[in-house]
Amino acid sequence: MASNDKFYRPVSGNVLPRFAGIPTFMRLPNVDLARASREVDIGLIGVPWDGGTTNRAGARHGPRQMRDQSTMMRNAHHVSFTKPYEYANCADLGDTPVNPVDLMDSLNLIEKFFHAIYAANIMPLTAGGDHLITLPIMKGLTNSGSFKLGMVHFDAHTDTWDRYFGDFKYTHGTPFRRAIEEGYLDPKRTIQIGIRGGLYSVDDQKWGNAQGIRVIHIEEYNELGPEKVIEEARRVVGVGPTYISFDVDALDPVYAPGTGTPEIGGLTTFDAQIMLRGLAGLNLVGGDVVEVSPPFDNTGLTALTGVTMMFEILCLLAEKVRDMGSKND
Amino acid sequence: MASNDKFYRPVSGNVLPRFAGIPTFMRLPNVDLARASREVDIGLIGVPWDGGTTNRAGARHGPRQMRDQSTMMRNAHHVSFTKPYEYANCADLGDTPVNPVDLMDSLNLIEKFFHAIYAANIMPLTAGGDHLITLPIMKGLTNSGSFKLGMVHFDAHTDTWDRYFGDFKYTHGTPFRRAIEEGYLDPKRTIQIGIRGGLYSVDDQKWGNAQGIRVIHIEEYNELGPEKVIEEARRVVGVGPTYISFDVDALDPVYAPGTGTPEIGGLTTFDAQIMLRGLAGLNLVGGDVVEVSPPFDNTGLTALTGVTMMFEILCLLAEKVRDMGSKND
Amino acid sequence: MASNDKFYRPVSGNVLPRFAGIPTFMRLPNVDLARASREVDIGLIGVPWDGGTTNRAGARHGPRQMRDQSTMMRNAHHVSFTKPYEYANCADLGDTPVNPVDLMDSLNLIEKFFHAIYAANIMPLTAGGDHLITLPIMKGLTNSGSFKLGMVHFDAHTDTWDRYFGDFKYTHGTPFRRAIEEGYLDPKRTIQIGIRGGLYSVDDQKWGNAQGIRVIHIEEYNELGPEKVIEEARRVVGVGPTYISFDVDALDPVYAPGTGTPEIGGLTTFDAQIMLRGLAGLNLVGGDVVEVSPPFDNTGLTALTGVTMMFEILCLLAEKVRDMGSKND
Amino acid sequence: MASNDKFYRPVSGNVLPRFAGIPTFMRLPNVDLARASREVDIGLIGVPWDGGTTNRAGARHGPRQMRDQSTMMRNAHHVSFTKPYEYANCADLGDTPVNPVDLMDSLNLIEKFFHAIYAANIMPLTAGGDHLITLPIMKGLTNSGSFKLGMVHFDAHTDTWDRYFGDFKYTHGTPFRRAIEEGYLDPKRTIQIGIRGGLYSVDDQKWGNAQGIRVIHIEEYNELGPEKVIEEARRVVGVGPTYISFDVDALDPVYAPGTGTPEIGGLTTFDAQIMLRGLAGLNLVGGDVVEVSPPFDNTGLTALTGVTMMFEILCLLAEKVRDMGSKND
Amino acid sequence: MASNDKFYRPVSGNVLPRFAGIPTFMRLPNVDLARASREVDIGLIGVPWDGGTTNRAGARHGPRQMRDQSTMMRNAHHVSFTKPYEYANCADLGDTPVNPVDLMDSLNLIEKFFHAIYAANIMPLTAGGDHLITLPIMKGLTNSGSFKLGMVHFDAHTDTWDRYFGDFKYTHGTPFRRAIEEGYLDPKRTIQIGIRGGLYSVDDQKWGNAQGIRVIHIEEYNELGPEKVIEEARRVVGVGPTYISFDVDALDPVYAPGTGTPEIGGLTTFDAQIMLRGLAGLNLVGGDVVEVSPPFDNTGLTALTGVTMMFEILCLLAEKVRDMGSKND
Amino acid sequence: MASNDKFYRPVSGNVLPRFAGIPTFMRLPNVDLARASREVDIGLIGVPWDGGTTNRAGARHGPRQMRDQSTMMRNAHHVSFTKPYEYANCADLGDTPVNPVDLMDSLNLIEKFFHAIYAANIMPLTAGGDHLITLPIMKGLTNSGSFKLGMVHFDAHTDTWDRYFGDFKYTHGTPFRRAIEEGYLDPKRTIQIGIRGGLYSVDDQKWGNAQGIRVIHIEEYNELGPEKVIEEARRVVGVGPTYISFDVDALDPVYAPGTGTPEIGGLTTFDAQIMLRGLAGLNLVGGDVVEVSPPFDNTGLTALTGVTMMFEILCLLAEKVRDMGSKND
Repeated sequence: MASNDKFYRPVSGNVLPRFAGIPTFMRLPNVDLARASREVDIGLIGVPWDGGTTNRAGARHGPRQMRDQSTMMRNAHHVSFTKPYEYANCADLGDTPVNPVDLMDSLNLIEKFFHAIYAANIMPLTAGGDHLITLPIMKGLTNSGSFKLGMVHFDAHTDTWDRYFGDFKYTHGTPFRRAIEEGYLDPKRTIQIGIRGGLYSVDDQKWGNAQGIRVIHIEEYNELGPEKVIEEARRVVGVGPTYISFDVDALDPVYAPGTGTPEIGGLTTFDAQIMLRGLAGLNLVGGDVVEVSPPFDNTGLTALTGVTMMFEILCLLAEKVRDMGSKND
Repeated sequence: MASNDKFYRPVSGNVLPRFAGIPTFMRLPNVDLARASREVDIGLIGVPWDGGTTNRAGARHGPRQMRDQSTMMRNAHHVSFTKPYEYANCADLGDTPVNPVDLMDSLNLIEKFFHAIYAANIMPLTAGGDHLITLPIMKGLTNSGSFKLGMVHFDAHTDTWDRYFGDFKYTHGTPFRRAIEEGYLDPKRTIQIGIRGGLYSVDDQKWGNAQGIRVIHIEEYNELGPEKVIEEARRVVGVGPTYISFDVDALDPVYAPGTGTPEIGGLTTFDAQIMLRGLAGLNLVGGDVVEVSPPFDNTGLTALTGVTMMFEILCLLAEKVRDMGSKND
Repeated sequence: MASNDKFYRPVSGNVLPRFAGIPTFMRLPNVDLARASREVDIGLIGVPWDGGTTNRAGARHGPRQMRDQSTMMRNAHHVSFTKPYEYANCADLGDTPVNPVDLMDSLNLIEKFFHAIYAANIMPLTAGGDHLITLPIMKGLTNSGSFKLGMVHFDAHTDTWDRYFGDFKYTHGTPFRRAIEEGYLDPKRTIQIGIRGGLYSVDDQKWGNAQGIRVIHIEEYNELGPEKVIEEARRVVGVGPTYISFDVDALDPVYAPGTGTPEIGGLTTFDAQIMLRGLAGLNLVGGDVVEVSPPFDNTGLTALTGVTMMFEILCLLAEKVRDMGSKND
Repeated sequence: MASNDKFYRPVSGNVLPRFAGIPTFMRLPNVDLARASREVDIGLIGVPWDGGTTNRAGARHGPRQMRDQSTMMRNAHHVSFTKPYEYANCADLGDTPVNPVDLMDSLNLIEKFFHAIYAANIMPLTAGGDHLITLPIMKGLTNSGSFKLGMVHFDAHTDTWDRYFGDFKYTHGTPFRRAIEEGYLDPKRTIQIGIRGGLYSVDDQKWGNAQGIRVIHIEEYNELGPEKVIEEARRVVGVGPTYISFDVDALDPVYAPGTGTPEIGGLTTFDAQIMLRGLAGLNLVGGDVVEVSPPFDNTGLTALTGVTMMFEILCLLAEKVRDMGSKND
Repeated sequence: MASNDKFYRPVSGNVLPRFAGIPTFMRLPNVDLARASREVDIGLIGVPWDGGTTNRAGARHGPRQMRDQSTMMRNAHHVSFTKPYEYANCADLGDTPVNPVDLMDSLNLIEKFFHAIYAANIMPLTAGGDHLITLPIMKGLTNSGSFKLGMVHFDAHTDTWDRYFGDFKYTHGTPFRRAIEEGYLDPKRTIQIGIRGGLYSVDDQKWGNAQGIRVIHIEEYNELGPEKVIEEARRVVGVGPTYISFDVDALDPVYAPGTGTPEIGGLTTFDAQIMLRGLAGLNLVGGDVVEVSPPFDNTGLTALTGVTMMFEILCLLAEKVRDMGSKND
Repeated sequence: MASNDKFYRPVSGNVLPRFAGIPTFMRLPNVDLARASREVDIGLIGVPWDGGTTNRAGARHGPRQMRDQSTMMRNAHHVSFTKPYEYANCADLGDTPVNPVDLMDSLNLIEKFFHAIYAANIMPLTAGGDHLITLPIMKGLTNSGSFKLGMVHFDAHTDTWDRYFGDFKYTHGTPFRRAIEEGYLDPKRTIQIGIRGGLYSVDDQKWGNAQGIRVIHIEEYNELGPEKVIEEARRVVGVGPTYISFDVDALDPVYAPGTGTPEIGGLTTFDAQIMLRGLAGLNLVGGDVVEVSPPFDNTGLTALTGVTMMFEILCLLAEKVRDMGSKND
């Protein structure tokens, strides 16, 4: 296990108050990729882009507000007692380049960044951005499909629609159909939790079912409870490499009003925390928290919720480094 | 069962984005009453009036914001797979006339409108407005008391107070005492769910109890759970004609902050949805969602919640048309 | 001069309160293009699109909120006594189709719509949308450059930048360079009023100057005052066909906080009104009010300001119909 | 001149911070009418009622928020050096009774209260409430028309419309037609400053003109400037008893966003202050600040502006007591 | 039991609407301490101070907004039927003096005020203010430690940290360590409910455990449920004198967004109400509701929640007066 | 004159969109003091502290929001064509240490930081924080009074009060009395512009007048206009070392609603810009923009205004470096 000395530590709120200082994720140092390649185990990354959004844009502003709210996070997990900054070297790697007026260019820019992350052997924990960003992230992390990921996916929507406006294949409603088609995501190792909201048509659910995705609608969720759902999630993803994708609209909009496509009747933050904690020990390769949209969030609560979920995932990733070894060992 | 062709359909978000276009309820066509009399089975109607409000006004702005948020609704129910727009001809019938500076004139105007709806054999689904509007709606729908309605009533308050400021009989705290006295509502076929909040005096509950209204306070609700409460509701209203009145303050104010008289400790939206779904098959004649007050709702969540409840009720009404036949069959 | 009877009239606030009813522009009827071709002189149109926005998106929501606030407008101008609805047949023609995830497709869709408006001999008054929409509007209105427009342009920015992110030619910072290059806009008949804000580099102003655009920075504006600026505007645009483009960021952000790129130290609404009134009698072919961004406007003031400017422009266009004759004469 | 000892003084912010304590107007003591009759020269009064509002209600909440913001006011005028609390005995007389669901009852209740104020020889300074409240205030203060008032009236609207919804005579758009008809207000001693906004019809201005009201539209105002306008106001009202009525919508909505009927292009607060100061020495009998509507005011600025205007008027009234003598002399 | 006549009663909303009048706690009379000493059993008190806040200040504005929202409270408890104003003489005793720029002076001022409350035999129910205020309150109420209190403490944080910024002993994170050290609070009769959120270090919990404080983390809470937690609370505090301290951040931030240190995943308001009701019959000496911070609360919900909790505690205190006798008996 | 290569440059918005990236002042690099001592000419610094605030706290959050909004600033001045980043090496030096619960400790920490800035020969441009921070800044910059500064001071208040709550000498109302008494500020070379708002007593202005401070009340300002006021300012401060202190409450609150002590009737941003530009060529040693309080600023406009003023001052400071030489020459 790593000693304290060789890892970056968040700036202490007991030295510099939490409202002070330039906000980085979790008050960690901002490190460039070259240095990160040598030193960093877990990279916190922003993807400030919402070009795939078909209704209410705004998630491009998510990473900045999440960095701001992340200054309220602390150092150790109050249930598991995990100390991520003692197990792994973590840093804020800044934002990926994006192009707000060109969708395909943006997908390309994001994919290249995450391919470099993959090549540098860094586990990414990403703040979005709309959900389409998970597609190029997955492409990068799988070296363009040289292997397939499993996924634990929290969302109100399956995001497996096909086309939009006739012929458009890439929107924030389509990333996981594309990821399956393009070979980055294994549908049989994919579970979607919290799905709800009206259907465009009763055929909406057919494609995913046919691929073998395990979909847990909110009604089934409320019957099973978080513990059994997590058992099921662990069964589905198994021992293979697994990604966590957390769309904040999985939560009830009272917990995450600042999002593009709210659906009433969703998860509580407490249950979401319970479920994330239940993923400990999986073969995780990274995760993201997406669809935080500050223009629709007038108290900062959505971003606070988002970064608290990032801290939960960070603890999981750090436990893996603790168990598997750090670059700095 | 009705074919697709003869009914109006909502404008698809895949053709015109959800933020585009002139907002009508559910993106349905706006049809005048003359045409609706011939063609429409279920009429979505706004009553933009809050002249009965004794504390915080604002519900007069409810229908407009609910139309706006209703552009996010979809076509089929994700649990029951009900497809309302394939079972019934639905349209936005616009707003009733109202008079913001004359209470009695407004009650009269609203009653006339709903009497015409009754005469046209249209089932109304109404967006308020404060809760006093349900009184003239009931008068209209019962042809001034030629028969009595049962009611499933979601609310934090019984709305069966008697007088206000000495001698004033008509406020948003009195509609159901008046409706019972004037013969539109059968108290023995009335159930009130979610009641809570401090009392003016310990006698507050006497009148309703004496009439035989079944009151389920939030404490009893939380013991029974939504399924048993709905069993009780079905027992109370029986097979007679039944109206659903949904005051958004039945919900906890976190789900519906934009309302005139919030009371903490209320229903969740999920449980409310479960209960509304449980009313399937009753002999429904219409419903309303009231007390959405945009000036006190700074994210639009209350209106989104309101229109989602309207969609739940719409599915119930459409199922009745499916089973009983449409005008257009 | 047209009689009252043959023209559409706004719904009176004395019959239906201003908070009631489905909001169309100025409470006018919503008419489809086929009918409008035969009957309508001036078409009020929404272009709900912000895909050209490089920083803060949100103007896609502009037309809806502007329709809502336009319900507060009245029938006659309090200074000129112009009565637009007695001079011309005006209607809400709805929103153009747009594609929120494809910039080039959207430009094409908008251009086609406005080419149809041109072909139907309707004068358009448009609510945006970000400023890039003016490019396809101009293409449509000039029949792809079969003649050139002059322009009175109110803005904090010249919007004549060249490229973005290397090679991207179409953003809300480039429409007027493109319009000049592509032959829809005559730079020598173009005046830009209210320009201010830091420069990317001191070369920013060279291209426009070389083309012969008359740029009135806010400093010159404040020295000259609105009357002299309008004299200059009339001199610049002369007697040729002229378009008015009003970016709400021309105004000081206190009057228009809900916009993507606010610049402090701008025009007052009163002065803007004075200037618009000063354009009476020009050979106007249409106009737009753009960059109203509701997610950044928490009181509705920006939209109210926008529609009041639309009413000012509407009076100008209606005076032209009065003088030149209506379709319905 | 009165000595300091016999008058009430505001609680000092140097003793109890301005955010502390129960908020009364100007931090003065709350005194009942019986005691006030004996001791008080100037009574600060709330009329929390907006039953005359035809569009956006909310001014019923005005007095409470104005009391809250008034805790930021200080003791002496920084230009005139007037010290109102050393010249006159001032107190918060609380709110008048009102009935939110009965317009005519409310007018009666308000009139009775102000008749008592008249009988008690107290000069009232009132915080509204919508503008209809000025009608019963004037009835009370003139002993039901036993003499007529002159008026300096700041407003965007003349409030001299006749009827609404056919036959309704009492709305916040009609008080001054009624006050003239019923004999409380002398139109020839009435001046209206800041009038603007679209007209219902070009006849809107005829009635007032025929009565001899001096109307200064915003355009004339901006040509004359505040000093000359005040000269004109002094000429119009002359030496007779005069009332000041300040509707905050006279101001540009950037200074007073929280109001029911905002009109762009209005007065600045500084100019309004200059004009109020210019009324020194008139034969004033009272004043009001109306149409502050907190639900539409999300920063408190409108209420702060309103109470600053109240402080300006208070200084004028106190100067009269200084010159004419206090009850307590 | 006390008769109705000798006690103060809240102003009825049926006489003066709830939006009218100068807001005191629960619409009770504002009584000075001299009179209260003779007459009042339960004093409602504001402590408008947040000088101990290490991150987001604002709780200094809490008492004023809580008074405002308290105008919506009613007279009798809808579950227990407790009628506090018939059992005890209750009054608003105003705000304690505080010094916003001197921490130690403020602690001293607050302690003196509460020592006088103690000496006057009044039970205090206090609205904060940040949580550091509970330290001087306890010092005052225990006559500087002449006896020790037990405490039922609702909070997300234990508030038993030691020092801040090196050597600073008094912040809103330290009151209960100080209260134990200084001898006002008995740790073995202290229970903390709702604790959660990341740790500064894994040693955070050691000190409290060593003292014997019973800490119920949110995870244990959610397993036990409110009824068993209250059983445990009653066991811990026993029959000795007991204080209730309710930090609104114990609640999930959706119920109390307006607070300085929100932590997601907290209590519901309903469960908090159940727990407070479960404290009936304890030997209570007072209570407080703290950390309501209006600048971070944009709907007033946090203050409404706070005052509803105050009403729950008020009923408990009044029941004790009913059973033990009032000063006025 | 310095070439481009040796200086830091802001990240271009054409490379990384303005909403992307970790926000530093003006998108400049964040440099520590050791390196800055060698390389930096002008240091942008945050002082996140509001412990001197007697009413509404919140300015502690100012530097973070100002950094965020500063990402919208550009590279060259659009009037003077000044290119600050080509004339001087500018960097973000981070925030000073502060102690939110200890006023005197904070003053000491701030003073030490600015003494180091002085010793390192860096010109500071500071974002506050409340206005008390200017006192320790001045102490640091004058090497504890080894020479005296002149000051151009924009403010609604003179900030020369003496004591508060009896004996407290240090609040945000007293910095300039203390600075004069302690020998850092020369009152005869001090001008205060924009002063207004009610007085505590008519003696408020005596002390400053006696010291020889030139006070320009808003009324005098509006008579003279910005150009003459600046002439007077240049006369007053002369050729000695001069500091610019810009309290955003100098502006009318419509431009700067997010501030602790708003006073209506203030400066426009345009006039403030004109005045700042008029200070070119003075012997400037630094400047600050203070009292931006994000919790009271719900659109970000106050921070945008603040950073635009910082850019104006930055250009002045950079011109001095251009003329006097850079460290890097």
